[in-house]
Amino acid sequence: MTSDSTLHLLATLLGDRLSVSKSERDNHGRSESHFPLTPPDAVAFPVSTEEVAEILRICTASNTPVVPWGAGTSLEGHALAIKGGICLDLSRMDRVIEVNAEDMDARVQPGVTREALNEELRSTGLFFPVDPGANASIGGMAATRASGTTAVRYGTMRDNVIGLEVVLADGRIIRTGTRARKSSAGYDLTGLFVGSEGTLGVITELTLRLQGQPQSISSAVCAFESLEGAVEAVIETIQTGIPMARIEFVDAATALAVNAYSGADFPAKPHLLIEFHGSESATAEQAELFGEIAKDHGATGFDWATKTEDRNRLWSMRHKAYWAILASRPGSRAIVTDVCVPVSQLARAVSETQADIEASGLPAPILGHVGDGNFHAILLMDENSPKEREIAKGLAHRMAERALALGGTVTGEHGIGMGKLGYMRAEHGEAWDLMGEIKAALDPQGILNPGKVVP
Amino acid sequence: MTSDSTLHLLATLLGDRLSVSKSERDNHGRSESHFPLTPPDAVAFPVSTEEVAEILRICTASNTPVVPWGAGTSLEGHALAIKGGICLDLSRMDRVIEVNAEDMDARVQPGVTREALNEELRSTGLFFPVDPGANASIGGMAATRASGTTAVRYGTMRDNVIGLEVVLADGRIIRTGTRARKSSAGYDLTGLFVGSEGTLGVITELTLRLQGQPQSISSAVCAFESLEGAVEAVIETIQTGIPMARIEFVDAATALAVNAYSGADFPAKPHLLIEFHGSESATAEQAELFGEIAKDHGATGFDWATKTEDRNRLWSMRHKAYWAILASRPGSRAIVTDVCVPVSQLARAVSETQADIEASGLPAPILGHVGDGNFHAILLMDENSPKEREIAKGLAHRMAERALALGGTVTGEHGIGMGKLGYMRAEHGEAWDLMGEIKAALDPQGILNPGKVVP
Repeated sequence: MTSDSTLHLLATLLGDRLSVSKSERDNHGRSESHFPLTPPDAVAFPVSTEEVAEILRICTASNTPVVPWGAGTSLEGHALAIKGGICLDLSRMDRVIEVNAEDMDARVQPGVTREALNEELRSTGLFFPVDPGANASIGGMAATRASGTTAVRYGTMRDNVIGLEVVLADGRIIRTGTRARKSSAGYDLTGLFVGSEGTLGVITELTLRLQGQPQSISSAVCAFESLEGAVEAVIETIQTGIPMARIEFVDAATALAVNAYSGADFPAKPHLLIEFHGSESATAEQAELFGEIAKDHGATGFDWATKTEDRNRLWSMRHKAYWAILASRPGSRAIVTDVCVPVSQLARAVSETQADIEASGLPAPILGHVGDGNFHAILLMDENSPKEREIAKGLAHRMAERALALGGTVTGEHGIGMGKLGYMRAEHGEAWDLMGEIKAALDPQGILNPGKVVP
Repeated sequence: MTSDSTLHLLATLLGDRLSVSKSERDNHGRSESHFPLTPPDAVAFPVSTEEVAEILRICTASNTPVVPWGAGTSLEGHALAIKGGICLDLSRMDRVIEVNAEDMDARVQPGVTREALNEELRSTGLFFPVDPGANASIGGMAATRASGTTAVRYGTMRDNVIGLEVVLADGRIIRTGTRARKSSAGYDLTGLFVGSEGTLGVITELTLRLQGQPQSISSAVCAFESLEGAVEAVIETIQTGIPMARIEFVDAATALAVNAYSGADFPAKPHLLIEFHGSESATAEQAELFGEIAKDHGATGFDWATKTEDRNRLWSMRHKAYWAILASRPGSRAIVTDVCVPVSQLARAVSETQADIEASGLPAPILGHVGDGNFHAILLMDENSPKEREIAKGLAHRMAERALALGGTVTGEHGIGMGKLGYMRAEHGEAWDLMGEIKAALDPQGILNPGKVVP
């Protein structure tokens, strides 16, 4: 519980940018996933780093939990104030501070969204490549080490954040990294805060690596007779060194859901969707090489596109997948799980998961970022059926265990939040204790997003 | 000082794999750079993780410093036992444990050298791309976050180590990361240990990301009228998205030193050396595009090569540069400095450094990994002249200060060791204290490589 005196101090600092209204608290107590409503005691809307620092000093003095909030698009309940306290909504710190076109980097505030940033970059010929699907905030994407469809080419947030400004629990403001492309000057604090889910500090500024907008983009979709054929094609493509910008897998159930949703007529088979970025001749050559490899592994029904509108049509299968899947069972709610395995184990991980889903009776299409070995199941359950909820949770649980048994991780890109905390010991062993020791050193009172990530 | 009882316990554990001989101690008290001989009290040669853990338990119990040692090729005195204690020589833990060709990864022990690893990988069609020049150990390369000529394409050790086994100060053995290509499961401990220079734990195993050997390699060397022209060509090449595998800068002084050393006849101008990896048509296209850009910026004397022996001849300028520069002033010793700036600031950083060198009267050729904004000066001094030593140190000092003033870092790839400790506050501000807090949490007695990296 946040004390009245703490709320008073915060209100004095922030004026009407501190809200205790039920609607604001409820807005910040919801998640995009299946977690129950968990409103914070109040919602703060800082507009500067100094305000964030002052809020943290006030909350440290009174032992009040502080939970940073970006765009609220996380899937594992990361930003829910499960121990009460203040929700720190950073959406009003949303400026693009500086774009250095020559160095292909930008300094931004954490509240800017991915789409707003790319809109602002459009005229520079540059773009920020990490694309988790949702229009998440850049700060939130860093905090959860997000990635998505383009990670196979451009990496995750770990690879695309080169520096941070962070406010620590006690209000100290630090800067990590420089604008140099690389450095060997001491511990990689940038990398430590990326993926720390608001438990070590509050990110108040980011320096991002940008990419040049590709001269040419070429996309394709093709169907495979079998999951194994699709995965083998991906492995061979990677080994041949063909630089894919995106390579996505959707299973037959997803293809059927998209057909029903948008009147498409994809065959009821597993599909790969692929995209190449580069010069016109390079993407043409890559497309041809990929086509040969894919055909060797049983691909049919190739559909290529280089024009934007045609590409968008092809990719609609992927972009509409989540909504199509939700619509395929009206009234249902989804648990969207996320695991990542070594690519050599992907076919096994997916086919065992499909068998498990089939045996469960629950509809649960599978799709994912196959170039990274990362895949999701959209577990559709009747919210009002405790039995279906249990079945869905059981499926998600066995997916996580299977990923670990195959040498993988319980989350490739969604993060730990509340949903995956129970697997940290199994994945990390004693290294999990080390995470706790680092947390205790940086946030000895444990006020930053308590109950998440660490033991 | 290491107590007799500690030495006795270690000798009981290791037998003749603990040495207190003067020659072994001196061998492990030298550095490749200008630091004075600093022999440890004893040298331990463990052959297993369990032995490393037992050594650390013994040393923790007696508060004895432990300094990990790879191949002894670091340039800033990283592995010198400046507080005495035990040198932990990991060279006998040099196995390639496992290569997963399908997943393009490998598990190795820390003592394997870069060249030995690539020799073992040759038949698999894969290679480990990080190339710092020296035949360093992989463990040492991880500990200093090394990079080198290929970082512009394949990244640094930060990007190519996906998991670690680490022994902590108290003897706990932890594993970080999985074999999955990406993960959002908690703090990035792998990234924290990479670059920690043996101050947080001892790396006893690494999981590395491998690359496919390129189908075709194309190299070129060309001269520029001006430094600015060369840098502008690099910036435009990067922005155009042409994927360079290596792009190296050498100044006129280096070209002249190479001429004198190996009978070449490079013009007395700044040069770029460039390499492309990919399919035959892709590298040909990239070479052509680069050639056009380079000519726009005043490049002349293009010499292209695709055959191995011709490439080796072209690259001899780079590979022989250090020895050629040393030979250009017989009897001299070199301080090899390392800074990294945003690429847009590179021409300014290099030309101001050249002017400073010229004013100093000391010979000091400049070369570097220009695609990253990373460059080195080889400061040639008469070892027996305290005056020249002061001049050289002054030049290196102003290079570091200049790098910071231009938004860069005091070391792009060599690390902190003893040589750069004095710049940590200027580069990191209060974030340096945070590094100290993390160190204190993980190694409360401060036995791991004391006197390095942290306050």
